[in-house]
Amino acid sequence: MLEIKVPYLLCLGNTTEFIFTKTAKGILDWRAEKCTGQISLQGCTIDLGLPELSITQAAQLGIKTLVLGVAPPGGRIPESWYEMLFFALENGMDIASGLHDKLSEVPGLVHQAKEEGCQLFDVRHSSEDFNVATGIKRQGKRLLAVGTDCAVGEMYTALAIEKSMLKRNKDVDFRATGQTGIFICGTGVSIDAVVSDFVSGAAEAISPNNKPKHWDIIEGQGSLYHPSYAAVTLGLVHGSQPDALVLCHDVSRTHIIGVEGYAVPDLAECMQTYISAAQLTSPNAHFVGLCFNTSSLSEQQAHNYLEKTEKQFNLPCTDPYRFGVEALVDKICEID
Amino acid sequence: MLEIKVPYLLCLGNTTEFIFTKTAKGILDWRAEKCTGQISLQGCTIDLGLPELSITQAAQLGIKTLVLGVAPPGGRIPESWYEMLFFALENGMDIASGLHDKLSEVPGLVHQAKEEGCQLFDVRHSSEDFNVATGIKRQGKRLLAVGTDCAVGEMYTALAIEKSMLKRNKDVDFRATGQTGIFICGTGVSIDAVVSDFVSGAAEAISPNNKPKHWDIIEGQGSLYHPSYAAVTLGLVHGSQPDALVLCHDVSRTHIIGVEGYAVPDLAECMQTYISAAQLTSPNAHFVGLCFNTSSLSEQQAHNYLEKTEKQFNLPCTDPYRFGVEALVDKICEID
Repeated sequence: MLEIKVPYLLCLGNTTEFIFTKTAKGILDWRAEKCTGQISLQGCTIDLGLPELSITQAAQLGIKTLVLGVAPPGGRIPESWYEMLFFALENGMDIASGLHDKLSEVPGLVHQAKEEGCQLFDVRHSSEDFNVATGIKRQGKRLLAVGTDCAVGEMYTALAIEKSMLKRNKDVDFRATGQTGIFICGTGVSIDAVVSDFVSGAAEAISPNNKPKHWDIIEGQGSLYHPSYAAVTLGLVHGSQPDALVLCHDVSRTHIIGVEGYAVPDLAECMQTYISAAQLTSPNAHFVGLCFNTSSLSEQQAHNYLEKTEKQFNLPCTDPYRFGVEALVDKICEID
Repeated sequence: MLEIKVPYLLCLGNTTEFIFTKTAKGILDWRAEKCTGQISLQGCTIDLGLPELSITQAAQLGIKTLVLGVAPPGGRIPESWYEMLFFALENGMDIASGLHDKLSEVPGLVHQAKEEGCQLFDVRHSSEDFNVATGIKRQGKRLLAVGTDCAVGEMYTALAIEKSMLKRNKDVDFRATGQTGIFICGTGVSIDAVVSDFVSGAAEAISPNNKPKHWDIIEGQGSLYHPSYAAVTLGLVHGSQPDALVLCHDVSRTHIIGVEGYAVPDLAECMQTYISAAQLTSPNAHFVGLCFNTSSLSEQQAHNYLEKTEKQFNLPCTDPYRFGVEALVDKICEID
């Protein structure tokens, strides 16, 4: 599996809107220690607060990877960036991109990388060959964050759980299944880019056999209730063989995003569907808690909502961003 | 979507075991009218009973496509076949292959095909770009054959249903999702070769919007109970938006093939799982019958088994190979 070397130089490109630096901001939020500098190109008005470095300065500071963690229109790599890309390679840096356009399709870049002994990572794509899933039960414990819909905080939840478990000196790894997560932990697979025959096999590879008490905290993708992406989700659920599941939900979401006419599922029904799916490969799979994005509610409303939901499911319920995940992690730690 | 031109010349290669001509035999069984001849290479001991033709003879007879419908060891294209492949192109024939090795990777073959204005089809792979599934309800009726496991007769069942409906002058199309099916109907998608993000979208493309009374009879793949391939199956279930489902099962199968320690599911539970999945995109999806491979039973045992199962589910139950699908098709025709 890919290994993106640290430290990173975060490229902000020509970005003028903060939302397009979401990936770079995610890396900085969760792994500030990996981010030594930022590089802005003409017209950029965003500042992540990191030292602004040229490629030469970055190389002198020992930066190993130029990270393209912004989203230009259409996910294209602008030609105006080419000079920076070649210069990064000439200075011995690898390049990792989360864009739709592939680095490997920038004319001459693959050749140049070979010449310089550098690597190019197109983390949104999948260049590896995976085996078909075996379904063989692995050692180690695994938690998978799943969602009522796409983009309901699965990555944030998984990272918050990892952080809390690390503080408790648990043997734990966040496992990334999407581009931002891959930049954050330096490895992983964009699971939705894997050929469907191998998607469960890729999920098995992401969270491999481990020590009996080791925990993998796996980032979920999509939702079993999303008519476009449920196949990705099911492959991830089966391949992950989760001991524990956490359901993520955005309380303001009434309809599945990106499609017309699909309601967000009832929480209880949704949990039952995930349990049934997960138990095919992990017979003891069960939910250990629920994580909500309550940003649309006042603090008091959020507390009321979480209290009500805790009573309904008799499980820890939280908004990880507002209230942390300690009670949830207590519950995880009850599992041997 | 690809369109393989007829008639076909079936290449039997150097095959000495009948099982390796399964694909060619399937084409001949279901579409004899498409198969004008066979071509055997050195050492071949199999005869499908078609006229043995050279490439030149085949071209003179107006054959449009050389079909590689045999499985050499490892799915490789032997170098000893190259001469035949180039000569087919020189004679104006397209080539369609169901092998793991790609025609497009045979040195010089793509160039030669371009020169001659011929097409190369690697039907086991997916070269098309599909859209993400929209989940928008389409016109027309769709039936999907699904399985308790892989390879339990989904293609045979779907083709038998199409044949019976055609005899009844119904407006109907078999829709192929695997290589043999694609050769048989000349178009389709190897659904398990599609990137997981697009697998439901590909399923939507396979059975597009149609006249209200038109039926698509869609070949299933994998099983929701197969820990390696369930993602493929779920994408196909969601994208197909089936009005009707048929469950396929091999009565001799006790364990899921290709993996260790997975029992074949209980029929009733399995049907409920498919219904729950299908109703996400097709709220009225329901089973119209069950098809069994009873080849391990005597005729009397098979009758007894089918009678018992009919009573249990109050649905037509048959072995399509032994007893046809007429009662099942009666049931389908009850749907408006």
